[in-house]
Amino acid sequence: MSSPPAVCVVDAKTPGNVGTIARAMKNFGFSELLLVDPPELDVDGEAYGFAGQAREDVLPNAETITFDELVERYHTVGFTATTNEDATKHVRYPFSTPAELRDRLADLDAPTALVFGRERIGLTNEEFARIDEICSIPANPEYPVLNLGQAATVALYELRDLALARDQLPAAYDRADEREIEQLYTNVDSLLRAIDYPDGKRPKTVRMVRRVLGRAHPTDREIRTLHGVVRRCTRAAEVAYGDRSPPRNAGDGDR
Amino acid sequence: MSSPPAVCVVDAKTPGNVGTIARAMKNFGFSELLLVDPPELDVDGEAYGFAGQAREDVLPNAETITFDELVERYHTVGFTATTNEDATKHVRYPFSTPAELRDRLADLDAPTALVFGRERIGLTNEEFARIDEICSIPANPEYPVLNLGQAATVALYELRDLALARDQLPAAYDRADEREIEQLYTNVDSLLRAIDYPDGKRPKTVRMVRRVLGRAHPTDREIRTLHGVVRRCTRAAEVAYGDRSPPRNAGDGDR
Repeated sequence: MSSPPAVCVVDAKTPGNVGTIARAMKNFGFSELLLVDPPELDVDGEAYGFAGQAREDVLPNAETITFDELVERYHTVGFTATTNEDATKHVRYPFSTPAELRDRLADLDAPTALVFGRERIGLTNEEFARIDEICSIPANPEYPVLNLGQAATVALYELRDLALARDQLPAAYDRADEREIEQLYTNVDSLLRAIDYPDGKRPKTVRMVRRVLGRAHPTDREIRTLHGVVRRCTRAAEVAYGDRSPPRNAGDGDR
Repeated sequence: MSSPPAVCVVDAKTPGNVGTIARAMKNFGFSELLLVDPPELDVDGEAYGFAGQAREDVLPNAETITFDELVERYHTVGFTATTNEDATKHVRYPFSTPAELRDRLADLDAPTALVFGRERIGLTNEEFARIDEICSIPANPEYPVLNLGQAATVALYELRDLALARDQLPAAYDRADEREIEQLYTNVDSLLRAIDYPDGKRPKTVRMVRRVLGRAHPTDREIRTLHGVVRRCTRAAEVAYGDRSPPRNAGDGDR
């Protein structure tokens, strides 16, 4: 999408929920907040209290519009926890999950609004009849109804790639060089010899170490620290046992 | 996992956040709530007010434990918005995203706790030093810090498959039978003849209808309704134009 979807909250009763949604918008890169029949949003009240840094921009820039204007200006996606069961009723059917919606909206270049309804009852069937497509968050069949602010948070999290060029996380996971990891297994073998580990069990134990580190995918830093620990153990064993059980290549790990 | 992960909230200050987390737990199928140094959870206060139906079970069944007990009894996953940048510091590095965590925990059979820290500062470095692995929610680099309740909601949404055997959504999307869809294109062609549509443009327009419906994947119900509309239009054209431009096979769509 050329610009991220807008978020529209219809007839919210609780200012705190509007603030929570504004915060989630800012956390996941969205900025255009539309309000239909909003509650009073007092700068000293819960909306601003719950908005975090979105109190600086998303919330004060919110636009109040009518439902008619919403339908006219935007491709609308309505959210509901309770879909129809099958195609015999199509007010709330068919629907997408947020993950499916993300994939489909990615290729779309049109003003789009994600529409969330009032607390408890959500959007009415009359409103859904005028909304273009339906989205539903998969949840517990025994209690699928999320709180308004939490539903919007989950949806915006799942759709974040439509709004964010990148996230805050460092990109590359710098797994250690394979040769450094292999060298550690060799040095562990030497250490086992140095501490007089039973010859018959040694290969099995080295293999176990390989399995543990193989699953953990150690970083460069972690492997260097492990090399240091093995090296010091090997030296201690040399001091303790001297020539009685000479460790072979015990110094290989030194660097 | 044989049982879903527990959720542990460390030193929360706001009862409302504990209630929000309890509700998200119930919405996504989790039940074991652990509290380290919790605030007072008054039955008439915000924790119960925000918990929705979780006020019946998750919240009253919450267990208060110490951080020592937490570390001793559980494989711990700590959540943070701010990871270390690379492997030179490993208090908050390496980390998984919630989606990666879900894949890895799926095969794990061990008591596991998802650990969320206090408002504003989250878990301390001292606490992270005792925690087994790190998870971080990808968010806006300019404002990655989610509210405590919202962070837990996103994490539990992403990990729901560890806790729920199924969700509330009807499983099968009953796309219409391919032959019904093909028949509609034939009938649209007949309709175009009946309304005296220019012969040169007709195949192109039928192809356009095919493209629109091809992307929309209509349900059985939708195709039947469209068949009905096309049939009535064709009849109207027959009445209007009679034999001047006789529609071929106009009745094919009748059923």
